Amino acid sequence: MSPELNRPEILAELAAMSDRYESALGNNDIPVLDALFYQGPETVRYGVGEMLYGFAEIAAFRRQRAGGSPPRDVLRRHITAIGTNAGTVDLEFRRHGGTRIGRQSQTWIRTLDGWKIIAAHVSLMADIS
Amino acid sequence: MSPELNRPEILAELAAMSDRYESALGNNDIPVLDALFYQGPETVRYGVGEMLYGFAEIAAFRRQRAGGSPPRDVLRRHITAIGTNAGTVDLEFRRHGGTRIGRQSQTWIRTLDGWKIIAAHVSLMADIS
Repeated sequence: MSPELNRPEILAELAAMSDRYESALGNNDIPVLDALFYQGPETVRYGVGEMLYGFAEIAAFRRQRAGGSPPRDVLRRHITAIGTNAGTVDLEFRRHGGTRIGRQSQTWIRTLDGWKIIAAHVSLMADIS
Repeated sequence: MSPELNRPEILAELAAMSDRYESALGNNDIPVLDALFYQGPETVRYGVGEMLYGFAEIAAFRRQRAGGSPPRDVLRRHITAIGTNAGTVDLEFRRHGGTRIGRQSQTWIRTLDGWKIIAAHVSLMADIS
């Protein structure tokens, strides 16, 4: 069976989770950031300058990142709900003072403990000019 | 209900789809590449140097990319099956002659026409040395 795409109530849930994530990132709120990632070896996070496999590596990275993620503005966001228990959030951002566009992709799953990110990828677009 | 992770038969299906994608990418087989992306406005592909929204932009990009994707070797692959109808494939690669590690993240969904990529993100890791 093919999952139904973009049920409005699931899109709304994912938008709220994305808002919560961006807020926690901006405040370097490590307990919330931890709580928004799936706490298992399945979770992957490719960052601008790192590749992290499993929740333990992601949690350790947060704790050694002095000052947290550089402040940024979200320029565009695109959400797709996959059935009722999964979805993707893709967004473009610009770091304050930065010139390159950043991109963040997240795949979320619904668990008994709420929505969690199971895969994430953050990068700055290559300057190909 | 929380989706079951990593059912072996779903992992095997996703691995086979990833192999098919890498083969088509290496051969710049545009019909197969097209067929592996979900053909709707929901699909997103962030590439090394572009941001593409909707299948039409992705298909157009393939056709103007002279020679296709630069040849590369896959260094590591991490697959997570989400229930029976979705999953993520994350991999690291190195372009031939390249020095920076590339990363590719895909979210796949099962449709009546087979597995399709609904979100993808490709980047080269920032040189932070």
